[in-house]
Amino acid sequence: MEPELKAKIIDGFTIGKNIRANLKLEIEELKKKGCVPHLAIIQVGAREDSNSYVRMKQRAAVEAGMDFTLRKEPESITQAELLAMINKMNNDPAIHGILVQLPLPKHIDEKVITEAVDYRKDVDGFHSLNMGKLVKKDEDPLFVACTPKGCIRLLKEVGCPISGQRAVVIGRSNIVGMPVFQLLNRLDATATLCHSRTKNLGEIVKQADIVIAAVGRARMVKGEWIKDGAVVIDVGTNPVPDSTKKSGYRLVGDVEFDVAIQHASRITPVPKGVGPMTIAMLMDNLVISAKRYFEGTRAPWT
Amino acid sequence: MEPELKAKIIDGFTIGKNIRANLKLEIEELKKKGCVPHLAIIQVGAREDSNSYVRMKQRAAVEAGMDFTLRKEPESITQAELLAMINKMNNDPAIHGILVQLPLPKHIDEKVITEAVDYRKDVDGFHSLNMGKLVKKDEDPLFVACTPKGCIRLLKEVGCPISGQRAVVIGRSNIVGMPVFQLLNRLDATATLCHSRTKNLGEIVKQADIVIAAVGRARMVKGEWIKDGAVVIDVGTNPVPDSTKKSGYRLVGDVEFDVAIQHASRITPVPKGVGPMTIAMLMDNLVISAKRYFEGTRAPWT
Ligand SMILES: NC(=O)C1=CN([C@@H]2O[C@H](COP(=O)(O)OP(=O)(O)OC[C@H]3O[C@@H](n4cnc5c(N)ncnc54)[C@H](OP(=O)(O)O)[C@@H]3O)[C@@H](O)[C@H]2O)C=CC1
Ligand SMILES: NC(=O)C1=CN([C@@H]2O[C@H](COP(=O)(O)OP(=O)(O)OC[C@H]3O[C@@H](n4cnc5c(N)ncnc54)[C@H](OP(=O)(O)O)[C@@H]3O)[C@@H](O)[C@H]2O)C=CC1
Repeated sequence: MEPELKAKIIDGFTIGKNIRANLKLEIEELKKKGCVPHLAIIQVGAREDSNSYVRMKQRAAVEAGMDFTLRKEPESITQAELLAMINKMNNDPAIHGILVQLPLPKHIDEKVITEAVDYRKDVDGFHSLNMGKLVKKDEDPLFVACTPKGCIRLLKEVGCPISGQRAVVIGRSNIVGMPVFQLLNRLDATATLCHSRTKNLGEIVKQADIVIAAVGRARMVKGEWIKDGAVVIDVGTNPVPDSTKKSGYRLVGDVEFDVAIQHASRITPVPKGVGPMTIAMLMDNLVISAKRYFEGTRAPWT
Repeated sequence: MEPELKAKIIDGFTIGKNIRANLKLEIEELKKKGCVPHLAIIQVGAREDSNSYVRMKQRAAVEAGMDFTLRKEPESITQAELLAMINKMNNDPAIHGILVQLPLPKHIDEKVITEAVDYRKDVDGFHSLNMGKLVKKDEDPLFVACTPKGCIRLLKEVGCPISGQRAVVIGRSNIVGMPVFQLLNRLDATATLCHSRTKNLGEIVKQADIVIAAVGRARMVKGEWIKDGAVVIDVGTNPVPDSTKKSGYRLVGDVEFDVAIQHASRITPVPKGVGPMTIAMLMDNLVISAKRYFEGTRAPWT
């Protein structure tokens, strides 16, 4: 790739690595004071994708010097048993973050489980109370969901102005699109939220100084839609067949990268763009939680 | 006014009156089954504007055949006393909706008070849990704030299509702009949220099929910004000096009405547009709450 194009790429891999290295130092300091951040994950069943996500989180937590607990439960666990387990973790003062790996088996109501995690340990940021506080002008959530937080962190790391800019978010899921929209609004961007019912998406994207794509459709955001100079954050992670790969597939984003990079001032690649930020932000949320507990800025949850 | 312009006016006064008349019938039926919707309002101090809002709500509740409790407390009430009072109402199975009239005196934290109302009796829809559920794709809030709900109801009453339409919301307050944005998104509009940091507001408004103004600045939305055929909902209620009035002022909206009506297909007047809907939707929320309790679709909150 030509150097002037290469310079446009937002290197989420290195940014994420640096964030985690800094957190590691911070955790060392915390430990000296007797505070060890502790992440607990509950995994139900043994889906291959879940295994790999949990492994990544475990590795990151351990590398950062945190305590880590993994409860692997069989598919047959009942909702009541799962709730009891969460409740015990809610009441365990040594645990600062609880993460229930989704998806859960069909006989368990994910909404009930998500709301059962104490919102003060909700390092995923999915609890309705944290979501509600994210949306309210004069309040702050205790945690912001990791991927959206990572998107904004990338914008900040590359010095992208946000206040007063036009932003377009494509996708409105609870875990990416909607919270990223809220964060952009909190930072005073003028944001438009697009989704599967949006008409003339190309025209709307064309007006954006900041484009965030979180759709889950390979290369659906056409490169020609990108306004010259816009900053593009591509959350999409879509496997497409690739016979040159051992796995038989490779990952591409929601954005037609090779064309978009001609127009954008900065753009994230897939992989190694947003992906590594999600884990880094999870670690960040853990440190925030442990400090909040330790420094007693909140009443302990026991 | 010429008849073809007059026909464009959305008559919130009559729509609100009809809604309340229908609720009254519904309440008569509920009473036969032994369920009497009951609104409780706590008013702290005796601000003139609060007096008048509370009076309006009381009148509407009584007219509709509801039970009504008003606790008027002195400015000197402590936060702890207020919390105790709310807690008692939370636990009173005869009360279906609790409303703490805002603003509160400075020594009381409005956020703490708002969150103290049981979200199952939060007929104002301001609790973070209800706000969080409003924002989440797969959840439903127990209550939606009255003014935003009234705006959407007006759109529906006049048959305005929402799904797939471009909507622009000006203003992002917790009580109007933000929830109205969320409702538009839930109904599959492609919505843009504007605020005081928005640049080129006129250009953005010009693209909208639906414009909702909730700013609080007299006639700041210029009539020429309105796209031909757009539907305009004007939430603004701004007093401007008027020596021909006994009070010395009259109320105008955020929209330059006389010019906007030339372009809009439908438009709300101020007053008698959104205003009457707020009270009607409060009564609607009360009936929803009483039914939910009575029909046992939720566990009672005692
Ligand atoms: N760490 C990371 O890098 C992460 C990456 N991801 C990736 O991000 C992508 C999105 O994930 P997620 O938010 O969970 O996905 P969801 O499937 O939950 O949401 C997809 C959103 O895209 C919208 N959409 C679908 N089709 C279109 C279309 N043709 N035009 C415009 N919008 C459309 C949907 O609209 P509607 O609401 O109308 O259905 C929906 O809001 C995926 O590729 C996922 O793998 C996700 C999380 C973390
Ligand atoms: N029943 C009814 O009819 C009701 C009527 N109202 C009326 O609605 C109006 C809004 O009320 P409320 O939401 O409480 O007001 P707030 O003052 O809480 O919010 C006003 C919003 O307007 C935005 N704003 C201010 N100036 C501009 C500007 N120049 N351009 C674009 N946006 C701007 C602000 O932006 P920022 O966030 O950047 O500060 C803010 O988000 C008022 O007139 C009020 O009287 C309100 C409630 C009920």
